[in-house]
Amino acid sequence: MSKTIAINAGSSSLKWQLFEMPQEEVIASGIVERIGLNDSIFTIKYGEGQKYNEVLDINDHEFAINMLLAKMTELNIIASFEEITGAGHRVVAGGEHFKESALIDDAALKLIDDLAEFAPLHNPAEAAVIRVIQKLLPNTINVAVFDTSFHTTMPEVNYLYSIPMEYYEKYQARKYGAHGTSHRYVSEQAAEMLGKPIEELKIITCHLGNGASITAVDGGKSVDTSMGFTPLAGVTMGTRSGDIDPSLLPYLMGKLGLTDIKDMIDILNQKSGLTGLSGISSDMRDLEHSDKPEAQLALQIFADRVRKYIGSYVTVMNGVDAIVFTAGIGENDANMRKSIINGMTWFGCEIDDEKNNVRGEQRVISTEDSKVKVLLIPTDEEVMIARDVEALK
Amino acid sequence: MSKTIAINAGSSSLKWQLFEMPQEEVIASGIVERIGLNDSIFTIKYGEGQKYNEVLDINDHEFAINMLLAKMTELNIIASFEEITGAGHRVVAGGEHFKESALIDDAALKLIDDLAEFAPLHNPAEAAVIRVIQKLLPNTINVAVFDTSFHTTMPEVNYLYSIPMEYYEKYQARKYGAHGTSHRYVSEQAAEMLGKPIEELKIITCHLGNGASITAVDGGKSVDTSMGFTPLAGVTMGTRSGDIDPSLLPYLMGKLGLTDIKDMIDILNQKSGLTGLSGISSDMRDLEHSDKPEAQLALQIFADRVRKYIGSYVTVMNGVDAIVFTAGIGENDANMRKSIINGMTWFGCEIDDEKNNVRGEQRVISTEDSKVKVLLIPTDEEVMIARDVEALK
Repeated sequence: MSKTIAINAGSSSLKWQLFEMPQEEVIASGIVERIGLNDSIFTIKYGEGQKYNEVLDINDHEFAINMLLAKMTELNIIASFEEITGAGHRVVAGGEHFKESALIDDAALKLIDDLAEFAPLHNPAEAAVIRVIQKLLPNTINVAVFDTSFHTTMPEVNYLYSIPMEYYEKYQARKYGAHGTSHRYVSEQAAEMLGKPIEELKIITCHLGNGASITAVDGGKSVDTSMGFTPLAGVTMGTRSGDIDPSLLPYLMGKLGLTDIKDMIDILNQKSGLTGLSGISSDMRDLEHSDKPEAQLALQIFADRVRKYIGSYVTVMNGVDAIVFTAGIGENDANMRKSIINGMTWFGCEIDDEKNNVRGEQRVISTEDSKVKVLLIPTDEEVMIARDVEALK
Repeated sequence: MSKTIAINAGSSSLKWQLFEMPQEEVIASGIVERIGLNDSIFTIKYGEGQKYNEVLDINDHEFAINMLLAKMTELNIIASFEEITGAGHRVVAGGEHFKESALIDDAALKLIDDLAEFAPLHNPAEAAVIRVIQKLLPNTINVAVFDTSFHTTMPEVNYLYSIPMEYYEKYQARKYGAHGTSHRYVSEQAAEMLGKPIEELKIITCHLGNGASITAVDGGKSVDTSMGFTPLAGVTMGTRSGDIDPSLLPYLMGKLGLTDIKDMIDILNQKSGLTGLSGISSDMRDLEHSDKPEAQLALQIFADRVRKYIGSYVTVMNGVDAIVFTAGIGENDANMRKSIINGMTWFGCEIDDEKNNVRGEQRVISTEDSKVKVLLIPTDEEVMIARDVEALK
């Protein structure tokens, strides 16, 4: 029996799935929320729809993982800790160094610490969890799976900003992208669905969740992506602005009486996007059910920004065989998918309304005649993490 | 005899052309450089290739215009001031108010002053020149021709940023665009060249000079443009960065030890773009003749950013009939035009190398079979200004 746990740790949360490998069977999954706050919530799903829930104060990730291992034994999900032979950790920032998933040794762990500058809320939490697993499961291998690795194949023409070159050379100021594991997973699935080697395909993957990014995948490699130096850039998101004219920052700071640019960036990260435009919510469902004109406008703007990135990536690859929708909005919002693809009929891309009338199911949703195939593919970052652990075992 | 002068005033320069109207014949043209500095340069071209040059200290625009009128009489370009019945002034920022060129009365002049917030270097200089002309040529009508007017037809889905809506409502923070007079001129010329009513055409106009912007012109109306709240946004330019992740600003300010965001914006306006990337020059010719790899890279990045905007505007209009190149780079750089259009063959756009081998001549440069026509059209903002004056006389 060889089990692998895929862990996605945030600063105050811990999501996980336990896989039986190499079958890729999910044995259990769960989430710990509000770590470090009062009334943390500990949840496990396992077996045939069974569920374990507890509300208690969980002060740190070490306590959370200790409790998780104890409960997994108690609930007979595992017979002993030794069954867990691999742990895969989602790490947000891998910088230029980590071009693929990596076995974690002391040097790798130090690098993950050092890269905290690029993901101040995430990398430290993830490094902490790795250290806890190393301590509690000393015989388990740990593998880091980076959000950025898939995008390290971007050519410099696409990852460089048009700023003084020394800012890249000295300070690594460049585009890194994000959601790499998801873009990688859905592009591989797409090739399988289309029955062609991924090397021969040009795919545009749209990961549309509360965070959203678009990637041009040429021959299986990310060649461009909409997120930038940080996940603030690119398309309109739930609470993030995406691309704006940098000159707006000093102008708005003057109007708002802000003196610290970090406060302005916080507004662009947390109070902008669909929330800022609509004044209602970052949730597509709330907007779709609203009569407020701003809600409809926010939906149109979201569709427009995604559509423009798709158009621009058609020119990056000089073509496109398939457009893939994934993540919360991409998987569940048929109206939004339709709205995005309307406006692309000119270059041979058409949604089949009947096929599109579905949620979270892997299928082709374009018409038979559509020159460009449109695919709906539920993402599965956890299985990618487990696969990467398996490959390095 | 009815003469119109088209004036383009910057903070330290004054370019002008004198037209015989309605024939649109250029009788004379000139430029005053280094106004307010020592050794200002005063130049007039007139007649059959005649030229007048003088280097002297010109302290302000009033002195410059006084001298200009005196010299025009002295050189027999005009017999008396009364011949100049119209003056057209390029004004950079027209905000949301000026949807077309406007006869200047007191109210209009006050509005141009008030809009200085959106163009602090330009609007005050332009207002000053208007006041000088009003004083020196009291019987001449003055017309303001705004860089932004052509873009006021953009729908809100394209001019709004994904930031809190109140920033638009209270502070008019939105996309305004620029180079409107040029985009308007070349799109009208394009319709004429294609022999079709502009109302039936989808045109993407690429004004590529030291400043550069791309516009989607649908049915003769600007529906989207790459410059933003200011001319900093959009594609890579001579010294401007174009679009970047706003999060880069606090990061770079930290690295560079800057505390005032305006210093960071100055770097993005003045030391970035082709100059920043190449470390050589903002001039395409210097880059094309350089062996430095960074120079070639800067050229590729410029082409890539323009190409991506073209691709995105194809989706905005759901199609494109013609792509137009204009302004310094667009008119004169055959390699760059070719490089931009390479990468668009998939959607039926192909350059004819022989036809493309030309500088500054109005012509079709795509192949016979090209589904999308590619046009080279030298811009002429001055004649547009003169026409707008004529229409309001």
